Amino acid sequence: MVKQVVTQAVKQTNAAGELTHLLTLEGMPKEQIVQILDTAQQFVSVTDPAREVKKVPLLRGKSVFNLFFENSTRTRTTFEIAANRLSADVINLDISTSSTAKGESLIDTIDNLIAMQADILVVRHNVSRAPMEIAQHVPTFVHVINAGDGSHQHPTQGLLDMYTMRHFKHDFRNLKVAIIGDIVHSRVAKSNIHALTTLGCPEIRVIGPESLLPSDLDMLGVKVFHEMEAGLKGVDVVMTLRIQKERMEQGQVPEGNAFFKQFGLTQARLALAKPDAIVMHPGPMNRGVEIESAVADGPQSVILQQVTFGIAVRMAVMSMVAGN
Amino acid sequence: MVKQVVTQAVKQTNAAGELTHLLTLEGMPKEQIVQILDTAQQFVSVTDPAREVKKVPLLRGKSVFNLFFENSTRTRTTFEIAANRLSADVINLDISTSSTAKGESLIDTIDNLIAMQADILVVRHNVSRAPMEIAQHVPTFVHVINAGDGSHQHPTQGLLDMYTMRHFKHDFRNLKVAIIGDIVHSRVAKSNIHALTTLGCPEIRVIGPESLLPSDLDMLGVKVFHEMEAGLKGVDVVMTLRIQKERMEQGQVPEGNAFFKQFGLTQARLALAKPDAIVMHPGPMNRGVEIESAVADGPQSVILQQVTFGIAVRMAVMSMVAGN
Amino acid sequence: MVKQVVTQAVKQTNAAGELTHLLTLEGMPKEQIVQILDTAQQFVSVTDPAREVKKVPLLRGKSVFNLFFENSTRTRTTFEIAANRLSADVINLDISTSSTAKGESLIDTIDNLIAMQADILVVRHNVSRAPMEIAQHVPTFVHVINAGDGSHQHPTQGLLDMYTMRHFKHDFRNLKVAIIGDIVHSRVAKSNIHALTTLGCPEIRVIGPESLLPSDLDMLGVKVFHEMEAGLKGVDVVMTLRIQKERMEQGQVPEGNAFFKQFGLTQARLALAKPDAIVMHPGPMNRGVEIESAVADGPQSVILQQVTFGIAVRMAVMSMVAGN
Repeated sequence: MVKQVVTQAVKQTNAAGELTHLLTLEGMPKEQIVQILDTAQQFVSVTDPAREVKKVPLLRGKSVFNLFFENSTRTRTTFEIAANRLSADVINLDISTSSTAKGESLIDTIDNLIAMQADILVVRHNVSRAPMEIAQHVPTFVHVINAGDGSHQHPTQGLLDMYTMRHFKHDFRNLKVAIIGDIVHSRVAKSNIHALTTLGCPEIRVIGPESLLPSDLDMLGVKVFHEMEAGLKGVDVVMTLRIQKERMEQGQVPEGNAFFKQFGLTQARLALAKPDAIVMHPGPMNRGVEIESAVADGPQSVILQQVTFGIAVRMAVMSMVAGN
Repeated sequence: MVKQVVTQAVKQTNAAGELTHLLTLEGMPKEQIVQILDTAQQFVSVTDPAREVKKVPLLRGKSVFNLFFENSTRTRTTFEIAANRLSADVINLDISTSSTAKGESLIDTIDNLIAMQADILVVRHNVSRAPMEIAQHVPTFVHVINAGDGSHQHPTQGLLDMYTMRHFKHDFRNLKVAIIGDIVHSRVAKSNIHALTTLGCPEIRVIGPESLLPSDLDMLGVKVFHEMEAGLKGVDVVMTLRIQKERMEQGQVPEGNAFFKQFGLTQARLALAKPDAIVMHPGPMNRGVEIESAVADGPQSVILQQVTFGIAVRMAVMSMVAGN
Repeated sequence: MVKQVVTQAVKQTNAAGELTHLLTLEGMPKEQIVQILDTAQQFVSVTDPAREVKKVPLLRGKSVFNLFFENSTRTRTTFEIAANRLSADVINLDISTSSTAKGESLIDTIDNLIAMQADILVVRHNVSRAPMEIAQHVPTFVHVINAGDGSHQHPTQGLLDMYTMRHFKHDFRNLKVAIIGDIVHSRVAKSNIHALTTLGCPEIRVIGPESLLPSDLDMLGVKVFHEMEAGLKGVDVVMTLRIQKERMEQGQVPEGNAFFKQFGLTQARLALAKPDAIVMHPGPMNRGVEIESAVADGPQSVILQQVTFGIAVRMAVMSMVAGN
């Protein structure tokens, strides 16, 4: 069992313990994670292509603001779709061209959105903990969802990853999970490690070059590997992370081919995992850098199912916080 | 009583005198202003956070085009929200990347939107009177709302300011109002002066450096002050305007600290106004330039209420013009 | 009768011959074109300004993605409005700032949108046949509409042009149609020539400088003219195309005034066509380059009606493919 140190208390529940914001998976109780996954499961059927009207009126008349201080069309789009399917109104705020550019402070911008009667703020920010700062500031009828803050957390990605693992592997208590790549800078990795630990996953491995693996207390209990062969042996879940090209240029990651040679997920390497191991990736993929096309498109890949489950998980989170 | 010279007849009503466009507050009859404020009052309750569904079907099936030739995320967003809450469909047109960039004329662009069966065009333009030109061109079933034209008018801002003053002060007939800053270039100031005059406000003061105060006939009756101390004495409403940094660079406004020293709204200066005076600002604020944080966040500040009332006022205007 | 060579079989129907994608007008059977035009005719009445609610619930709960790899506010807006009026949810994807910019392949982007349960992908791409490639890749419950691919096809424009001609001229079997300008690079011209041929138009003329007229087999049967006077004589429909300024700079088109002198549509030249000839243009117009203002705004111009019919045609196409 992985030990976990909660570095800072972040309040994301009300007095009754119900979810009012989604800021981090660090310290979130097991029951709450399970409740979100169960709620998401109901929404998976709402969005079935065979269903005539892929829409429920749960958030009708509510205003969801997509507040992206850092650009991410993919994540923004999944939140927009999730909000649409809950019948909410969605406002996309292009922050680079907004009042912030005119020198307005973050809190002044937020105060204005509150005054416009926003119900949910979906916030992506390049500064770690910015969504927490916002959540501490808003009144009880406004709900904040962290859509990725710096290299800190990306809780809806962590939850959709948990959903995917539960869907395919059913029980976390016998699971061996390997996460490959830049763990230090990855909010996806951090959110996954926190959630897996809480859900009782007995063995979490991280695989990557020394410069990209964590050394801090937070990660106590995670098994560290510098070689794919040893790290992948016998695991049930293989998750590769996206390699940020900027990091290659800064010399933190071996460049292009060199990274692929050492840490690329190939068919040969995947054969070392359990035969029914699933392959996950948060997207967008760099084919030929962190993953081979034969693996990305192969029978063990559940990468596109992750995207589908991501919509349902975001619908679950939005409908839960809006109701609490 | 301030005298007012209507420089150009702009037609914003039909034969029955009902509002069909909102272009300017100059020359708008008192009854019409009051009717808009009364209509807005009903919409304030629609958008109460406690209300389950913050939406009415008044503009269902109508198409509102946000036609912003000049960027303003804040104003655009408030119109988008107002339209959402009236159940209209909203199309945001990014003009810098549109056909206008391919050399199409303004009137050709408008003709195309009419052909697409637009119902309401919300227009912001850096050229004064562009919305008037558009309104003269459109057929009777298309309605134009001026969302700010050059340094000319910003009528929905003026109306939300009137709403705010009426909400807190009830009666305009005993009111002393001080407007501080760059009056000459401010469409907000002009819209406010026209509306206040019409509503019977007996004393409108403008305070600022000589270079930024008007000398024209339009402003006849407005009291001019070059010192905060004299100008603020005994007023009921203090409105500071945003200082455009470009104007500082061009030498029209004393730079940064110098402006704040002379014209910044501080707690000490605010103490010269009536004890129950309210503080207004159209946003976004430059804290430490035109306003002190202690005042902006203080008990007399109604700056965020202005934003909330602004949504209701825009709902009122859109629903009124669309019905006429 | 114009002969037509189908260069590549593109599958845009299901086993029952019903439309599942709209990719090209090349090879589309007459009955299918007529069915689209008949369906559009019903939607023209839905969007009548006099109608209280310009909306039908046909695509409620469906997700339409506007996937524009090449910028076109005008075309994107018409699809957005058409989708709104069918009650669909619309997601606009700004591709230049999306994952594609992060090195994701086109097919990976599409796979993600499928995983997000897109129902309709409206695709504009600067590479010819990109929408066909996408259509071959998607599952049966996803539908692709070509909104312009390279210099290849622009089928909804072709269809709205057919709608316009049918509306004003009723029967294609006696029609003489002249298309003026850059035929070689124009997807509008190609889509029109294919559709007119299929609908039995006995005489299609193209007028332009030699460098911009086609010489290939595809165009067999189209009459080629290098002079306006001869080309316009006795025609029922005059369609001028937009001159791309880039082509002028590259020397393929006579510059500015020179082009207008030779090929500009003036009142004097229009007088050579039949007295009741209609004037069409796909927009946006370069007044004084390919068309004289007196003609663009004259009694024979149906340029703005084209825009209105375009909405109805796009509603027809979207509702048809989504139902098949």
